[in-house]
Amino acid sequence: MIFERVRSEGLAHISYFLGSDKEATVIDPRRDCQVYLELARRNEMKIQHIFETHRNEDYVIGSRELAHFTGAIIYHGPGLNFKYGETMKDGQGFSFGKMKLTAIHTPGHTDESMSYTLVDPKLGDQPIIVFTGDTLFVGDVGRIDLYGQVEAPRLAANLYDSIFNKILPLGDGVILCPAHGTGSVCGGSISEREQSTLGLERLHNPALQKTKEDFIKFKVAERFERPPYFRTMEQYNLEGPPPLESLPDPPPLSPREFQKRMKPGAVVVDTRTPSAFGGAHIAESYHIWLRGLPMFAGWLLPYDKPILLVLENREHLEMAVRYLVRLGYDNVEGYLCGGVEACGLEAWYEKAIPTEHLGLLTVQELKTRLDRSDDLIVLDVRSENEWNEGHIGGALHIYVGHLEERLNELPVDRPIAVICKVGNRASLGASILRRASRREVYTVLGGMMAWQKADYSVT
Amino acid sequence: MIFERVRSEGLAHISYFLGSDKEATVIDPRRDCQVYLELARRNEMKIQHIFETHRNEDYVIGSRELAHFTGAIIYHGPGLNFKYGETMKDGQGFSFGKMKLTAIHTPGHTDESMSYTLVDPKLGDQPIIVFTGDTLFVGDVGRIDLYGQVEAPRLAANLYDSIFNKILPLGDGVILCPAHGTGSVCGGSISEREQSTLGLERLHNPALQKTKEDFIKFKVAERFERPPYFRTMEQYNLEGPPPLESLPDPPPLSPREFQKRMKPGAVVVDTRTPSAFGGAHIAESYHIWLRGLPMFAGWLLPYDKPILLVLENREHLEMAVRYLVRLGYDNVEGYLCGGVEACGLEAWYEKAIPTEHLGLLTVQELKTRLDRSDDLIVLDVRSENEWNEGHIGGALHIYVGHLEERLNELPVDRPIAVICKVGNRASLGASILRRASRREVYTVLGGMMAWQKADYSVT
Amino acid sequence: MIFERVRSEGLAHISYFLGSDKEATVIDPRRDCQVYLELARRNEMKIQHIFETHRNEDYVIGSRELAHFTGAIIYHGPGLNFKYGETMKDGQGFSFGKMKLTAIHTPGHTDESMSYTLVDPKLGDQPIIVFTGDTLFVGDVGRIDLYGQVEAPRLAANLYDSIFNKILPLGDGVILCPAHGTGSVCGGSISEREQSTLGLERLHNPALQKTKEDFIKFKVAERFERPPYFRTMEQYNLEGPPPLESLPDPPPLSPREFQKRMKPGAVVVDTRTPSAFGGAHIAESYHIWLRGLPMFAGWLLPYDKPILLVLENREHLEMAVRYLVRLGYDNVEGYLCGGVEACGLEAWYEKAIPTEHLGLLTVQELKTRLDRSDDLIVLDVRSENEWNEGHIGGALHIYVGHLEERLNELPVDRPIAVICKVGNRASLGASILRRASRREVYTVLGGMMAWQKADYSVT
Amino acid sequence: MIFERVRSEGLAHISYFLGSDKEATVIDPRRDCQVYLELARRNEMKIQHIFETHRNEDYVIGSRELAHFTGAIIYHGPGLNFKYGETMKDGQGFSFGKMKLTAIHTPGHTDESMSYTLVDPKLGDQPIIVFTGDTLFVGDVGRIDLYGQVEAPRLAANLYDSIFNKILPLGDGVILCPAHGTGSVCGGSISEREQSTLGLERLHNPALQKTKEDFIKFKVAERFERPPYFRTMEQYNLEGPPPLESLPDPPPLSPREFQKRMKPGAVVVDTRTPSAFGGAHIAESYHIWLRGLPMFAGWLLPYDKPILLVLENREHLEMAVRYLVRLGYDNVEGYLCGGVEACGLEAWYEKAIPTEHLGLLTVQELKTRLDRSDDLIVLDVRSENEWNEGHIGGALHIYVGHLEERLNELPVDRPIAVICKVGNRASLGASILRRASRREVYTVLGGMMAWQKADYSVT
Repeated sequence: MIFERVRSEGLAHISYFLGSDKEATVIDPRRDCQVYLELARRNEMKIQHIFETHRNEDYVIGSRELAHFTGAIIYHGPGLNFKYGETMKDGQGFSFGKMKLTAIHTPGHTDESMSYTLVDPKLGDQPIIVFTGDTLFVGDVGRIDLYGQVEAPRLAANLYDSIFNKILPLGDGVILCPAHGTGSVCGGSISEREQSTLGLERLHNPALQKTKEDFIKFKVAERFERPPYFRTMEQYNLEGPPPLESLPDPPPLSPREFQKRMKPGAVVVDTRTPSAFGGAHIAESYHIWLRGLPMFAGWLLPYDKPILLVLENREHLEMAVRYLVRLGYDNVEGYLCGGVEACGLEAWYEKAIPTEHLGLLTVQELKTRLDRSDDLIVLDVRSENEWNEGHIGGALHIYVGHLEERLNELPVDRPIAVICKVGNRASLGASILRRASRREVYTVLGGMMAWQKADYSVT
Repeated sequence: MIFERVRSEGLAHISYFLGSDKEATVIDPRRDCQVYLELARRNEMKIQHIFETHRNEDYVIGSRELAHFTGAIIYHGPGLNFKYGETMKDGQGFSFGKMKLTAIHTPGHTDESMSYTLVDPKLGDQPIIVFTGDTLFVGDVGRIDLYGQVEAPRLAANLYDSIFNKILPLGDGVILCPAHGTGSVCGGSISEREQSTLGLERLHNPALQKTKEDFIKFKVAERFERPPYFRTMEQYNLEGPPPLESLPDPPPLSPREFQKRMKPGAVVVDTRTPSAFGGAHIAESYHIWLRGLPMFAGWLLPYDKPILLVLENREHLEMAVRYLVRLGYDNVEGYLCGGVEACGLEAWYEKAIPTEHLGLLTVQELKTRLDRSDDLIVLDVRSENEWNEGHIGGALHIYVGHLEERLNELPVDRPIAVICKVGNRASLGASILRRASRREVYTVLGGMMAWQKADYSVT
Repeated sequence: MIFERVRSEGLAHISYFLGSDKEATVIDPRRDCQVYLELARRNEMKIQHIFETHRNEDYVIGSRELAHFTGAIIYHGPGLNFKYGETMKDGQGFSFGKMKLTAIHTPGHTDESMSYTLVDPKLGDQPIIVFTGDTLFVGDVGRIDLYGQVEAPRLAANLYDSIFNKILPLGDGVILCPAHGTGSVCGGSISEREQSTLGLERLHNPALQKTKEDFIKFKVAERFERPPYFRTMEQYNLEGPPPLESLPDPPPLSPREFQKRMKPGAVVVDTRTPSAFGGAHIAESYHIWLRGLPMFAGWLLPYDKPILLVLENREHLEMAVRYLVRLGYDNVEGYLCGGVEACGLEAWYEKAIPTEHLGLLTVQELKTRLDRSDDLIVLDVRSENEWNEGHIGGALHIYVGHLEERLNELPVDRPIAVICKVGNRASLGASILRRASRREVYTVLGGMMAWQKADYSVT
Repeated sequence: MIFERVRSEGLAHISYFLGSDKEATVIDPRRDCQVYLELARRNEMKIQHIFETHRNEDYVIGSRELAHFTGAIIYHGPGLNFKYGETMKDGQGFSFGKMKLTAIHTPGHTDESMSYTLVDPKLGDQPIIVFTGDTLFVGDVGRIDLYGQVEAPRLAANLYDSIFNKILPLGDGVILCPAHGTGSVCGGSISEREQSTLGLERLHNPALQKTKEDFIKFKVAERFERPPYFRTMEQYNLEGPPPLESLPDPPPLSPREFQKRMKPGAVVVDTRTPSAFGGAHIAESYHIWLRGLPMFAGWLLPYDKPILLVLENREHLEMAVRYLVRLGYDNVEGYLCGGVEACGLEAWYEKAIPTEHLGLLTVQELKTRLDRSDDLIVLDVRSENEWNEGHIGGALHIYVGHLEERLNELPVDRPIAVICKVGNRASLGASILRRASRREVYTVLGGMMAWQKADYSVT
């Protein structure tokens, strides 16, 4: 049997390619699906089934894309009116090569959530692996807030029942294969460790140590961010996302062409490092560092405008495009061309087109200015949880995802130092403030990690 | 016949791999010589001869390295006491497979300079290709200043004779294969076009349109920079450079380890972009952008101290190391580790270790400040030729290679804006000033290209 | 300037990618055109022009394919009614970046044949390179037999005039870039050496040493094979070949599926070595060794039937498909699957599906049998030229390309030993005989090379 | 945490790379150890510990090789006098990054066999993963026959105790990571499934369903082949194998050079397919198909003679060399050069150097001949287990590994048809017979699989 985990970093998404004899199955494929085709090709297999664990909300599901290339049949859980694929029933069985897969209805994260057990008939009916989607993670369980506060208690109860009545009884020795690893927006406490079993989770997963009542209370009280792009993902994944065929290949743009396309309203996204962005950047650009795209593009970028990229170098293009199409942004019109392997911004400034800069503060410099009782405002853009664990006294708090809509809460005409954990989100926040014409804006390099390392006090 | 140009960018060096039947020959191999071994392997050939055109001064020759792996014999021109290899005579012939190579003594660039003609015996004695080393380039001829002013007229005369009496008579239809392309320090006007023939050079090479007398005058009057590392290269290439075996693989260093190694006198080289360096950098570091290493490492870096690198990302490590070993810098002790594919500086500042920054000026900002009759000094660090073609009125001129030794020519305590053509050398110059504790230093982004693009006046 | 030769081995076809600043041009692109897109991408260029030197007959031109991806304009020579692209006039000029290309009408190989000169305006009007298509090769000139015997003298005269009046006058120093290298069906004596200039050709090209009269006589007397697929290529290239989009990716087929598809008339092509084919093969299959596909597929394979492949191993699939699509065979239905990296035939015989074998003779064995005055017939399947240079006394001669239609010339019921130069074409010939139900057929391993090496007599 | 399985196919060996923060650990490294260095490099880690589970007997352990490059410390189990590395005690703990590894002494397969548990201190002391070496496999347990029949009962009892008292009590949820997968000579019934847990093994591993008494009986009765090269491996792994530094890169040899090296006693190994070998091969060569090298080289090849390879094509060279160095064969002197990407044999026979051939029989042909009561002997070279499950009536049985020493059991002067499961081992057997000057030898293509598929009777 072939068993391959396919990780999509950034989203911390995990999909699975399973094969036996000449037949293969994919669970929760991603949209840039060449990876599965290549696995099938290399193993001389034919992908026949595609299983979704649920209507995902954090990325575009690649089922239709993969079905387009393979003719495989797509299967969904019951109770949601998908516009493509087929609906399964609880307990329905499938086979590929010598292996069997059984669908188990495990509502909770969403109503139609499914898990799948893998059975090797040689060993009888006992499953070897269970694929749990967003129901059970390593060290955490799925979020239940997606239907709103009213539905949350019902979903939490369903989730508890799915886990305790359907999944854990499969046996301690069963290997756990969830849809997300650490860093996903779909679970706040997913473990860094990827390997687990039902036995290990039963003993160590904090959420599974509670009574049903406590479990429900705990889950209902949890607070997660819900980026606005989730709505688009849900719609895409329900109706079937637009076909992609191949990864877009945006052209290099000369500064002149770049400027021409900026005019009618394209959005500029600068994916370089905070110090490079702080040093010089194009006016009005968002700063989203390369590996921040999967997490923050969906908070800020509109789906109806073209996107223009400013990259550290050409090698980053494919990664940036890949991150964006996974969120459904298929409209990258080009990237600022800086000549082969050079940063695009050089091309820009050698044409005497003005750039802007941001202040960059070390934590020592920040401390000095705060001690001088400067009128500097510290704006902390970390999540609520991070803020609650300790922050600089007197700082304001707005999560970076909400900053654009809450700009009016910030005093006008005072300098603002934006801080996060290490500096990336701060730089994004600073770019949002600069887009809103705030004059004196600083990014704190090193953020709260450096602040605490320097032994400055936190509240 | 197999004919492969192997380009080493940065040095603008060109070496040649020739093969016929199962036998191969390499002309002027570079030190990181796996490329020739791989060509031999792929073509199932054995490298039997290595020919040097002269004792190179701008890079470490890879002959011994390649001979170590292949057992090939190394050949030099006459009149210089090489400590390895064999000395040829003018007119000496060699064969590989069905092809013949004939050595021609073509002094001028240096006394022992050789050229080589390739003859296909099927066509009689008429050569097809001539490999001219640093004697004749596409659009230029070799420099003759390496033995000093006294010897220059003699070498210029020799060069003229070698070209006009030995090379051009081979025939217009002979293909020209020199040792350098555009961008080399070995010739100031080498054409961007790589393809040429003796016929094209006879008609179009500016240096070949002169009488012998004018040619000598012109060559003697030429001024080239002669970086200090040339001495080391000459010694290496005469005595045989230290063996390399494989490309060094410097380890990632945590900020703590990095600091520990900085103490006893390691040199920090930051290869990021000027805007990233300007935004934040480690105190005392040189800024040499990645593709500037082959040109400027040899001006500034000592051979007897360890080198520590700060990189844009891990992918740049191999390139940086490759550039450095080609100049004989084998002592890269490590690079600042920033976690996989992240910039090393993030690791540094999140540990609250202070960074410094430079001012970055657009040309518009520079103009405004100069118009305000600011006390800002403009320091132009381009070459003498570039300076002579036009510069900002009132600017000072010191070539970036000489800046460190001429710092005392700069007024103390006035702000300095460093300018070059687009900004890279300016940033290097600014880093030199900062190492010398100059307080207020600016890099002009876009440099003289942007200045002229913006229609500001030049002198 | 970027200058890249793109070689398509097998066809011995050479196309050219030229770039300057951000603009690129391709001359005679091949159909699997990703290579040019990748060159454009890597150099951050846009392909704007595609030039054809003539309506090719030996491969499917990739102009439309490349235009589909780039929007580039396709240009043809005058006098032929192409259904796509634009028609040029003699002397028409084009520019890309800083470079200029001028079209020269050079009829002879065909009436609409064009050459192109590359001019660097910095050097005045003198061209640097000339792209000569099938007009002038290194060591040979284009064939003039494609319009038939009646037109041959006219075309030969045109060719002479094109070369002597239009191309050679460009100057000895001009670099020659033809459309084919050694091994092409478009010229029998093309040199192995790829590098040449007009000066070298003027002096050494045998065809250019003749008077016009002798040139015409010589060309008219030349005999070339004209494979039947040339008709299809001519039609494709005139009307525009079917779009390809991406290289076909034929699926692995189990022996059962393979057999099912053989039934309705698919053609089986076995690309393994002669000894493997001789040892065991599927009944009715053609044996065309992998690197023989570009040369022999077009002689034997129909365009209206599916093709099934038997490969040495999976790694050969892409190459086989690439060779076939270049000749317009887009209908490869699959390959015999042998499990990862194993030969497909193993899967076949482990299912107890019968295989056949051929006799394999060493030249020593052949000699012994002939000396015994065996009734063995020796069938020499080499070209007429090769046959004329010496063959085994008493052998029959039929070129392998004509064998299928001339089978009735062979005596029935006598054993036949097929011989060529080393054994590949002999094995193809033997497979044709076996398809025609000839019982006792042998492939001579080592062929005439071994025969002569063993000092056996030739006639 | 980084967790990577490194599979060495052929040997079915599995090693493990574990990393946390910047520190890495490798368990049972293979000799061609670049793979671990690359994992460390990519993850910016330093390999600090190397753990061996036991003195392996089926391959050369790569510990010293890897320690040479990294400075890591090597650890062995107690009770065997290793000439390198350090000896651990039962229960000894180690840490890397945030993780802990604990050594458990689990004698049985050998006396010094160790297992290792991985503990994430965040979860308390409960292990997550156990690395069991050759103690416990997926679906099988280690062999206990290596010390001979006298010691076998003691070792079997030890193995039972190690598994039942030390490993299984770790908990059903613990993930199982053994040193071998299916196909290894170290266990006859290892499952194809690679994923397992202690819980799954407790329930499904056939060996674990027995009482201690039955377990011992069962293990003592098991019969495994013990190839002669095991002795060399044991000595190497005890004393420390010779250093390798980098994968050998054997040169291409012309037929003349190849013949010259054959003279003084080099061994020729032909790695092509059975049908290619049958069709034509060099006299005296062993036929070991490429993927059979890890299993059969050690049965047949001497350690004190050079090895010469005949390959399907150049691409197979690295794989063949890799397989051989894993068994300690560092003396591959070259491979028969056939020109780029062509089979070497072509070069051989085009020089008129004679080749030999074997008969190749389909099962239908075999059946016909046996039915004719031919004097053909059927020689079955499969393992004893395979033979016992059914064979052709009247066949002789000698395992291919023993064939060379038992040749005198075969009647002289009768034709012999060698059969195995599908044809590869049969072809190896046939090559052994031909080396021993047996005249009429056949390989049965398809073997017993085809025989049974064709519904012919078995005994």
